[in-house]
Amino acid sequence: MATVAVIGAGAVGCYYGALLARAGHDVRFLMRRDLEAVRKGGLDIRSPRGDFRLKPVAAFGSPEEIGPVDWVVCSLKATAIEHAQRLVAPCMGAGTRVLALMNGLGVEERFAAWFGGERVFGGMAFVCINRGDPGTVCHLEYGRVSIGHYEDDPAQTEALRALLASGGIEVVVAPNLRFARWEKLCWNVPFNGLSVAAGGVGTQSILADEALSRIAENAMREVVAASNADLVAAGSAARLDAGQVVEAMFAQTRVIGDYRTSMVIDYVLERELEVEAILGEPSRRARALGVATPTIDALYGLVRAADRHRRGEAPVLTPDDVKGQW
Amino acid sequence: MATVAVIGAGAVGCYYGALLARAGHDVRFLMRRDLEAVRKGGLDIRSPRGDFRLKPVAAFGSPEEIGPVDWVVCSLKATAIEHAQRLVAPCMGAGTRVLALMNGLGVEERFAAWFGGERVFGGMAFVCINRGDPGTVCHLEYGRVSIGHYEDDPAQTEALRALLASGGIEVVVAPNLRFARWEKLCWNVPFNGLSVAAGGVGTQSILADEALSRIAENAMREVVAASNADLVAAGSAARLDAGQVVEAMFAQTRVIGDYRTSMVIDYVLERELEVEAILGEPSRRARALGVATPTIDALYGLVRAADRHRRGEAPVLTPDDVKGQW
Repeated sequence: MATVAVIGAGAVGCYYGALLARAGHDVRFLMRRDLEAVRKGGLDIRSPRGDFRLKPVAAFGSPEEIGPVDWVVCSLKATAIEHAQRLVAPCMGAGTRVLALMNGLGVEERFAAWFGGERVFGGMAFVCINRGDPGTVCHLEYGRVSIGHYEDDPAQTEALRALLASGGIEVVVAPNLRFARWEKLCWNVPFNGLSVAAGGVGTQSILADEALSRIAENAMREVVAASNADLVAAGSAARLDAGQVVEAMFAQTRVIGDYRTSMVIDYVLERELEVEAILGEPSRRARALGVATPTIDALYGLVRAADRHRRGEAPVLTPDDVKGQW
Repeated sequence: MATVAVIGAGAVGCYYGALLARAGHDVRFLMRRDLEAVRKGGLDIRSPRGDFRLKPVAAFGSPEEIGPVDWVVCSLKATAIEHAQRLVAPCMGAGTRVLALMNGLGVEERFAAWFGGERVFGGMAFVCINRGDPGTVCHLEYGRVSIGHYEDDPAQTEALRALLASGGIEVVVAPNLRFARWEKLCWNVPFNGLSVAAGGVGTQSILADEALSRIAENAMREVVAASNADLVAAGSAARLDAGQVVEAMFAQTRVIGDYRTSMVIDYVLERELEVEAILGEPSRRARALGVATPTIDALYGLVRAADRHRRGEAPVLTPDDVKGQW
């Protein structure tokens, strides 16, 4: 049994951490908003694969209280990447390994610079999940985690795979981290992007509208094109197949009802969006590779504008502004 | 001197009609909202090229009161195209010719089907103009009208050119109507589209934002690509040059301040948008020609979604909808 620190106990961190704890691992959660509720009532996991309650939960308010562990699972929001080093470092002992279970391109590079690449892993959770009331996580569908080691060491990858699998988590070893990150963006770019750019809607509103579905497919194909160019540039033989990606991602999205992406939830609640991690960075990476990604560029610019308007950083026109102009 | 009926007395119709009336033509305006104000107080044109007041104004509430004229200038909103035949027909005598001074692709085809192609002209007004208080038109900048005859008869084109020039209007005879319509879309697609898709902003907000400017340029280049494919398909030798279009349109937009497009004014005032004429039709036309226009597709889908949300036809998510999901 391993000691595991979950840094950033949002829906994803709580869910996978709870699965590992249920399997007997010593899992310690760094919590903020839910800390008191979880200490008092435990963690409630609602899932079509079986509800369960984790109680007591080793929940802490600072990483110093957690201290060094065998594994760190860093599931912070991408916008908190600048805080990751400070929050993870107190849990890093001599043999500690760290899994970045976050959105964004270039995440592992940051962790490798801070802690050394041989200890760094990346993980992409393909899961539909939301937080509910404090201490409650609502798992809706899917759950596969695609993993890779920063230095592509098969023995290291196997150690992480075994850890996750011991919690009953479906694990896929990706051809490499680059591949896995782009693969996840194939869904995140169109559906997170459109859920906000179209004004604040769920996935069903996108699928039900021919014009919005077309944008989603265009975006997906551009992510595939950028990903393959990036894989070529990195000397990797792995490729994504656009037709297969489009078919699989649309099929998977059709069955999950009117799912609200993490980005639209952040948008509606006027919280910071993962706009750079999910849209800005892919757009810039593609441009640097010479791949045209007009749809991603459009989603990036429009989501950024929506974010700035929503947070009051840039005004939108009101009827008073166009008074006497009609 | 000619008799002229202006059908659809918005900013564009009032401005050009007033210029023709000032030059001595018998101009009769079909008006709705401003009818009483204009009958009482005349038409007030505010323009950097010189303010002037037209009084009295021959303003009417029905086309039957106007009756047959030499020239009809139809400056209805594109969304009113289905009413155009009914509103124009009473003004059509045996020798009447009609200028469609409206947004949209395929407008002249409709007029030709109704009235016969030999009498039909198209016009594209490159003008920054808004209505002000009832009876007032604020002309801000530019004013060139690009014209063409539906059957490309040079003698006919010259007759229209002479009419407009007699009012002091800068007229350009386009290589053909197809060319002229696409040329105008080079500005309308990016700036009308983005002004709404970005949440309701003026042109300055677009130019000041690198990501939004990139979308504008991408859209402009796609319009040029679609236009040239359409011109090739039609056997026309005319072409638009993407580099020149981008340079000229951005330069012209830079000098007009924070201009509010007609589409953003409609959006802010919750009126119907010219979304099909300006975005939907070009997107479909390009697809039929086999030209990829992902940026236009994105603007179309997102503006249509914004329009439907604004007019209450489709709900957006509220904090209550994502309650217990964060």
